[in-house]
Amino acid sequence: MPPSEDDLVAAIRKVAGVGPGVLVGIGDDAAVVETGRGSAVLTTDVLVEGVHFSHASILPRDLGYKAIVVNVSDIAAMAASPRYALVSLSMPPETLESWVVELYGGMRTACDEYALSLVGGDLSRGRELSIAVTVAGEVAPGRALLRSGAKVGDRIVVTGTLGASAGGLAVERSEDPSTISSEWARGLVAAHQRPVARVGEARTLAEAGASAMMDISDGLALDLSRLCAESGVGARVEMRAVPVSPWLQQATPSLGLDPLRLALTGGEDYELLATLDGSKVDGASAGLRERFGVKLTDIGEITAAAGLIAVGLDGIEGPLAPEGWDHFA
Amino acid sequence: MPPSEDDLVAAIRKVAGVGPGVLVGIGDDAAVVETGRGSAVLTTDVLVEGVHFSHASILPRDLGYKAIVVNVSDIAAMAASPRYALVSLSMPPETLESWVVELYGGMRTACDEYALSLVGGDLSRGRELSIAVTVAGEVAPGRALLRSGAKVGDRIVVTGTLGASAGGLAVERSEDPSTISSEWARGLVAAHQRPVARVGEARTLAEAGASAMMDISDGLALDLSRLCAESGVGARVEMRAVPVSPWLQQATPSLGLDPLRLALTGGEDYELLATLDGSKVDGASAGLRERFGVKLTDIGEITAAAGLIAVGLDGIEGPLAPEGWDHFA
Repeated sequence: MPPSEDDLVAAIRKVAGVGPGVLVGIGDDAAVVETGRGSAVLTTDVLVEGVHFSHASILPRDLGYKAIVVNVSDIAAMAASPRYALVSLSMPPETLESWVVELYGGMRTACDEYALSLVGGDLSRGRELSIAVTVAGEVAPGRALLRSGAKVGDRIVVTGTLGASAGGLAVERSEDPSTISSEWARGLVAAHQRPVARVGEARTLAEAGASAMMDISDGLALDLSRLCAESGVGARVEMRAVPVSPWLQQATPSLGLDPLRLALTGGEDYELLATLDGSKVDGASAGLRERFGVKLTDIGEITAAAGLIAVGLDGIEGPLAPEGWDHFA
Repeated sequence: MPPSEDDLVAAIRKVAGVGPGVLVGIGDDAAVVETGRGSAVLTTDVLVEGVHFSHASILPRDLGYKAIVVNVSDIAAMAASPRYALVSLSMPPETLESWVVELYGGMRTACDEYALSLVGGDLSRGRELSIAVTVAGEVAPGRALLRSGAKVGDRIVVTGTLGASAGGLAVERSEDPSTISSEWARGLVAAHQRPVARVGEARTLAEAGASAMMDISDGLALDLSRLCAESGVGARVEMRAVPVSPWLQQATPSLGLDPLRLALTGGEDYELLATLDGSKVDGASAGLRERFGVKLTDIGEITAAAGLIAVGLDGIEGPLAPEGWDHFA
């Protein structure tokens, strides 16, 4: 017999625990939590089976972990701190209780890692598995870093490397079983299944004087076009500067990928894309390296003319299509 | 060609507007909002096609309205005030932009009615339509009214009448087209499609000294059993006192329903279920009548012995099964 809704809620309540700031957690009509003196920051992101993940290729623990992290990344991108998470889960009735508990175990791990509390949620039957997470965070008044602040002449920077997550997806879909045993393949799959949200890095970029920021969830080209649209500017990006994941370079012979293309359009990297005055890049870069061991790469500049320009490896300029992950394309 | 994700977001952004307290609304990585001095109250509820609604029998405007109201009801049940809403929408790729705009139009109407702001969300492709809404509200410190405060000897009260929403579902599913033209049928369907969240009523019950409260979303019997479990008590309910919707009484000859059973187990009424000391019932009742024209009915008492007891119309006592809406039963 499948568990009743109340049995499942009881099991989830044990896994979630009662984290810091929680006055009333799972089990009442709503959660009651403490707030700080700043502004609240709210975001929601849904992961749908067959669209964002395949049941067969990700463990419930990794899936739960990722569902929290992708939301934390959105809070980070505002230079804010995550505090509380809520989860709406729809699932086929045949889903095992043990699978659900593992899923919430992964969420709890991510919540512990990023110092937020899992405070509530909703369970529903559904034909497909769908996990909608909302995260509430906080930021000091006036300190949220928006997409709309980029200024003409600002440098464009990104943290870490790009394309690994899309490479991981390619490995998952590969029919060649020998692929998965290599170190680069494991690295790519881990980047896809266990992304990192750059919370501290985002605060460092804000302190270093970033003018605009967002996380790269749908691919550099598409996300940069969104940042530019919100700021009313354009951008010129040096293709030779785009920090392609080294694992992706190693994967190319086996998987026949185009590393630069994946880095530009692959999505789900959850690295930070920011703009800042040229005089501040070195300071920001040193801060990220010293505090987090994370690389910051200058990939181009903000321009007055709308649209994105790619400066090719051969130095020739052409339009950079704002392509990436679009759910309805 | 279907609209791109960014086109849809732009359309939704126009519909949502920028409500009170919103510093950064739809269009950035996360919303930034003002908070009050109290505690934050957070809830989430998902509506899934084929489980909570049928695409064929509800207009997108009503569906959007309902998706907000069911969440506002959870905030109300804590004696709190709703402030901000976020929406994660998954939908089949063939969904029309006009349908989506109507859906958000209904959400906007509910947000305006209950004085909250639609601040953000997420869009995804999915095989089935699924709407996960999160609402954040606020409550003065220490003033949230929980499920866990019921005391032995307290009276059990409910607002309004019960069973109409379940009756509306029965009308929708009825094969008899003459049914729908009657006033009672329209009333029942409206109760199902356009529920009312008792925000002011809940504050009045809290001020009148209610010891515990929740909203009736899954049926009186199941929800009362949950309140009792959280409070470590039991309950004795007088069947002749249960306020059955008068429309439901009128529908019985045509639809062959059992009005009392629907009132006990039907769910989705979003009336308030509260407990309070017997000396406070008259004051609470007068307050609800004078301020809102809403009836409060005393249906029984909280007992020391665990479990629910039904006092039948014939005066004979028997167990009241905690039946109602369970997604996995």
